Amino acid sequence: MKAEIISIGDELLLGQVIDTNSAWIGQELNKLGINVHYKSTVGDSKEILLNALNQSAKRSDIIVMTGGLGPTKDDLTKHILCEFFDCGLVQNDKVLEWVQSIFAKRNLPMLQSNNEQALVPEKCDVLWNRNGTAPGMYFFENGKAFISMPGVPFEMKCIFEEEVIPKLKKDFSFPVIKHKTILTISIGESFLAKKIAPIEDNLPSHIKLAYLPSVGAVRLRLSAYDTNEAVLANELSSIVSSLYESIGEYIFGEEEETIAEVVGKLLTKNKQSIATCESCTGGYLAHMITSIAGSSQYYKGSILAYDNAVKTEVVGVNPAIIKTDGAVSEACVKEMAEHTRKLLKTDYALATSGIAGPGGGTETKPVGTVWIALATPTSCVAKCFNMGDHRGRTIERTALMALDMLRKELLQLHS
Amino acid sequence: MKAEIISIGDELLLGQVIDTNSAWIGQELNKLGINVHYKSTVGDSKEILLNALNQSAKRSDIIVMTGGLGPTKDDLTKHILCEFFDCGLVQNDKVLEWVQSIFAKRNLPMLQSNNEQALVPEKCDVLWNRNGTAPGMYFFENGKAFISMPGVPFEMKCIFEEEVIPKLKKDFSFPVIKHKTILTISIGESFLAKKIAPIEDNLPSHIKLAYLPSVGAVRLRLSAYDTNEAVLANELSSIVSSLYESIGEYIFGEEEETIAEVVGKLLTKNKQSIATCESCTGGYLAHMITSIAGSSQYYKGSILAYDNAVKTEVVGVNPAIIKTDGAVSEACVKEMAEHTRKLLKTDYALATSGIAGPGGGTETKPVGTVWIALATPTSCVAKCFNMGDHRGRTIERTALMALDMLRKELLQLHS
Repeated sequence: MKAEIISIGDELLLGQVIDTNSAWIGQELNKLGINVHYKSTVGDSKEILLNALNQSAKRSDIIVMTGGLGPTKDDLTKHILCEFFDCGLVQNDKVLEWVQSIFAKRNLPMLQSNNEQALVPEKCDVLWNRNGTAPGMYFFENGKAFISMPGVPFEMKCIFEEEVIPKLKKDFSFPVIKHKTILTISIGESFLAKKIAPIEDNLPSHIKLAYLPSVGAVRLRLSAYDTNEAVLANELSSIVSSLYESIGEYIFGEEEETIAEVVGKLLTKNKQSIATCESCTGGYLAHMITSIAGSSQYYKGSILAYDNAVKTEVVGVNPAIIKTDGAVSEACVKEMAEHTRKLLKTDYALATSGIAGPGGGTETKPVGTVWIALATPTSCVAKCFNMGDHRGRTIERTALMALDMLRKELLQLHS
Repeated sequence: MKAEIISIGDELLLGQVIDTNSAWIGQELNKLGINVHYKSTVGDSKEILLNALNQSAKRSDIIVMTGGLGPTKDDLTKHILCEFFDCGLVQNDKVLEWVQSIFAKRNLPMLQSNNEQALVPEKCDVLWNRNGTAPGMYFFENGKAFISMPGVPFEMKCIFEEEVIPKLKKDFSFPVIKHKTILTISIGESFLAKKIAPIEDNLPSHIKLAYLPSVGAVRLRLSAYDTNEAVLANELSSIVSSLYESIGEYIFGEEEETIAEVVGKLLTKNKQSIATCESCTGGYLAHMITSIAGSSQYYKGSILAYDNAVKTEVVGVNPAIIKTDGAVSEACVKEMAEHTRKLLKTDYALATSGIAGPGGGTETKPVGTVWIALATPTSCVAKCFNMGDHRGRTIERTALMALDMLRKELLQLHS
């Protein structure tokens, strides 16, 4: 079974928007055991999209389209699909009601263009979009599925997971495929590869291992194909056990978990609380923690001490330390963590202080130098890192490393 | 003149790597006035790549390929290009010398596969790769250019800028194209479209307008083609003036600016400072501000008062207010802003308090209810919003709206 993806929008051809949707869809189809063999990107042009549709129908069984479904004039997908499937537009009352309810809830008047979002091609099944006003569409003709979804990533992802996958499972029969993802942190891809080489070299040919690196973390994805489901499950679980034996200290979670989620679960289980005191991470550490629903149960707050005066006057860092050691120092970051723990009355406090750049580096403290401290009920430890010279990645890596320090403390993993 | 891009590699189809190269190439070609009308992604498969080449030769004048040029077995592009152009491989001595010098410098032994990188198709001009061992290739046949470059972004970019552009300028004469992007905030796509309909309806046919929406903001992109450069510039600037007249209060910037950057520039110009006091945004507002290099000049810090005890004990909000009005209230958010402004000794302070969800909503204060306050040297104003029921987007929208309140205050735009 062959799938292809068509991404629609002039902004993609112009390069003003990077197409992350098609990578995500590629991964999701792959998890189902469906091979994406072709991707194309076309502009908001009738002739080109029609041609792309005709080509795709010749070579693929599942055609997934994103984009071109907004209420404005440059969005043409719906009309072109009507032409391709030789049908008209009809009003879908359920979608109309939904669009109206969204506008009513926000106290906004409906425009004619918003009403028109409820018009869908006669021949399609509507794919419910609970995050927006443009419905998705599913056509099944001559044993092939054509799927059209909005280009806004969070709308598209939700439609794909909740609406598209069940329909595909109904209309096609899929091979047996099983995946397992192991999440590692604080170790680079090539070091990881070296450590697990004995496991990787002995994988049976129907089980594949992929390294999916991101800033500060590497996901290891095992994919097993083509044999009995129960046997596959056993094989995978035995490989996963070997991975835990070999690199357990670097594994923080599995599947889609984030480090903030993992730390949150541990704190909740222990009925413990955390506060933060950030300088160089500038609120990003707090943002990672508070992105998790329910984090208010264990997270009390933060002093974002960007300016040194805030470090001394609000947090209570001894001004002499900043004078002699500087704000990016072990002594300073430890005081930040310890004082914040007391001020916000929590069990733990994490503090960060560093030079995110591009300015502010010196010979002894180059851009990327970062101190992280963790204050606990009984101790305070600090570590120094060099996070490199990219501001955004330094902020991200520092927040991840801070959460990993807390994770190891909560699990009593001392490295 | 029409261009298209072919990205080559299984990892792109599997979604393990997001294709950023093609967006970059699209932007660069566009700057030259070359319209990219099609992009495709194919795997490391001979049949599919040959087919893609044959298709592209029918519809495009410039075909840019990336990927599949490494020394490993799965990289096939060079051999397929020989087949497509019906020629053999010849050794390029200059490239061989270069590859040998790289290995010598790193003290690494040369493998046969490394020597083979100096083999190039007879019919191509070599594109020098000073960042790697795989040379690029340029074919010009029947008035069409075929360009093949490695997929590693920093190698590809350098080859494109230094080698490809001069060759294209020699072989083609380029049209005139101009772009202008206007950034709007606090207004939805359909309302924007309605407000500027008189302008949009009167655009000449050689000028196109595109709406590029993201959470809380919409970019308007004008693209003008095909006529005299000075005339185009005049036409665009007159349309931009009309846009400012019609929707000026919603325009926060142009081209690639962010709202945090715009606010930062205004504060720097005024020599003024800002602090924040966040509850529901959980550090994201601070993160947006501190993502901007140099923000430490005007941003002092934040009290992240997630827990009510932090609001009363650290910020100094009157506990009676929280008891009677609740933490998500006008009185509370105003005290948060005013106290923080004094505590951190800044000119301005922004405060947020709301129910990001998914839990915590009530009948009178449903999930998505958010209060934002701005304290200035002379006043304190607060506004209530409903940001919808998605936690992540509520956080993002609230931070944007807070920065937009500050932007309007700094520009004395009172709505």
